[in-house]
Order: sequence, then structure tokens, then C-alpha cells
Amino acid sequence: MNNPNELTVTIGGLERTLPTVRAGNLGRVPLVEFIGDSEFTNVAAQELVALIPAQTEVLLTVVTNALPLTHELSDRSGLPYVCARKKRRTYMQSPLIQEVPSMTLGVTETLWLDGPHAERLRGRRVAIVQDVIASGGTAQALARLVERAGGTVTGYLAAFRQGEPPMSVTVLQDLPRSL
Amino acid sequence: MNNPNELTVTIGGLERTLPTVRAGNLGRVPLVEFIGDSEFTNVAAQELVALIPAQTEVLLTVVTNALPLTHELSDRSGLPYVCARKKRRTYMQSPLIQEVPSMTLGVTETLWLDGPHAERLRGRRVAIVQDVIASGGTAQALARLVERAGGTVTGYLAAFRQGEPPMSVTVLQDLPRSL
Repeated sequence: MNNPNELTVTIGGLERTLPTVRAGNLGRVPLVEFIGDSEFTNVAAQELVALIPAQTEVLLTVVTNALPLTHELSDRSGLPYVCARKKRRTYMQSPLIQEVPSMTLGVTETLWLDGPHAERLRGRRVAIVQDVIASGGTAQALARLVERAGGTVTGYLAAFRQGEPPMSVTVLQDLPRSL
Repeated sequence: MNNPNELTVTIGGLERTLPTVRAGNLGRVPLVEFIGDSEFTNVAAQELVALIPAQTEVLLTVVTNALPLTHELSDRSGLPYVCARKKRRTYMQSPLIQEVPSMTLGVTETLWLDGPHAERLRGRRVAIVQDVIASGGTAQALARLVERAGGTVTGYLAAFRQGEPPMSVTVLQDLPRSL
């Protein structure tokens, strides 16, 4: 019998014991933490870089946990990246605003993509990068931002999948939905 | 006469033209963007890593723009890092909550440091890392979090200084306060 308070995963030979947190009706879910763990971030990026869809020209992610991972993927692939925010920043110019259709925990969110950043997606083939894809709601919202910016989505990449998102996702590992 | 809509800076031989944005009564201020620019992030980290105060055991930063930079500093120095958030996350356990005493633009903020992350600062010598230090309000709030967590501050590191913060800060470059 496993301890429901933690879950051990191995990526690229590096083992990490993830804490788990209560998530409403789901019970306990594992909490992936790339922030604060550059070694774990780096091995995940090293495994993911080979899986970036062919023809991809730009990576798109969203703050916050996937940010160090996407930085590393950009560094290793040589592809530039763009990052959507979860609130409006005062410096944004003509941002694209996109509601996230549904969230695992019933919390609605809005994504903001600064106008000059949206320009970097225009006419480009864009791969969407996340740390964890669960319901797929954020991934769908990011894909919609790509389309609205005039780009095309080459695919979805995530370190972990937790559940059954409606789109095809390339992941390193599946996490149990609850423990 | 310079163009007030941009400012060119050079770090480690790499030149970047920063956009400028209107910032209330300040006029136009340069906008440092590490997110989306892994090459610029990496040269800044390479220059900063040699400047980490002696005896430092842990780095502390705050989301969002400084996150890729701090990840790289951690990677290059081998020091772990901890990151404060700007809002409460549902998974946080007994977080430390710290008001930012004042902000350049008159916006008050609250920093949240998850309890298990605060534990990583206890008894440790901690350097505070930011992308830009301006009024120093966020730096002071981070320092207070270190003290409340039972750590001691070894110093303040930032890629850029923009203004005259009240503490001694090690920076790569001073930016003009307005253009």
C-alpha cells in the first residue's frame, strides 16, 4: 500500500517524491514542483526537447510552474518562446484576452497575451508547453490564443498528464488522477 | 537624442533593445523582459553567478519575470532556490504572508510563501534575487520573509537597478529611471 501523502516519480534517471494536496472532490492529487528544482526541470526539458513536434517554430506556455521548464526547452531547442499571463499587466498593449473554458477545480481563469507577444505567433507553427495537462482547458485556451494570433498549433507537450484531456498530448509520464 | 520608446542595453556582450512603457507620473520606463528570451536570461545569470554573496546557501526570488533568471542562477551555482508567490495557491500549507510596504506605481501587493518552502530557509543564509530592483519595496518584503522563516539575508542581487532603493544591491547595470 502506497503512502497517499506522496508519490515518487522518475524522469531521466532522477527520482523525486512529489507531495500530494487535497483537491476538492478528487481527494489527494500529486503536486508537481518545477519551481525551486532546477535539476528536475533540466532533466524534464532534456527528455522533452526530442519530442517537440516537427516544424515547430515557437513555443507557447503560461505562467507560472511551467516557466523554468519552457525556458530550458527554448534554450535546448533554440526555439523562441512566448508566455501568456494570468492577469493583465499595466504594460500590456492590445492584449489578446482568452477565457479558460473549464478548470479542474471549478475556478475560472482568464489568460492575457500581450499584443507584441501575440505578434511573435503570427504565421508561425506553435507548440504548446505545460508542466501538467489535466482537463485540457488551459491547453485549449492556449490553442485558441495561437489561432487568434494567426498561428497554427503543431501539438501539445507536457511533462505530466493527470487525467484524460480531450486532445492528443505528448507527455513524459502519466500521473494518477488521485491517490 | 535617444528614442524614448526604447533603450539599448548590453550584458555579457549581448545587446538587447528594451521596449519602454508609460508608468504613471514617471513617464516612460524601460521594460526588462527575461521571459521569452532564454539567451538574454543566460548571459545575465552567467554574469550574476560570480556576484552571489559569499556564504549564501539558498536563493529567494518572487514570481514572475525573475523566475527563469533564478532558475539559471540556481543551475549555475548549485544553490537551491525558493520562490514567493503573489497570490495564495490552494495547495499552500501554513504560508507566510507578507505585505509589500510600497510599490513604485502605488499598487499594494501581498507575497505568499508556502510553509514547506519557508522551512527551506530556516537557519540558512539567503540571497535575494530580482530581475529589477526599483523602490526596494519587494526586496524588503522578501527580506522580511527570510527573517520570519528563521533565515538570514546575505545580500541583494538584481540584473538591473532602476532608481535608488534604500538597501545595498549588487547589480549588473543601472537603468535610467525614466526616458
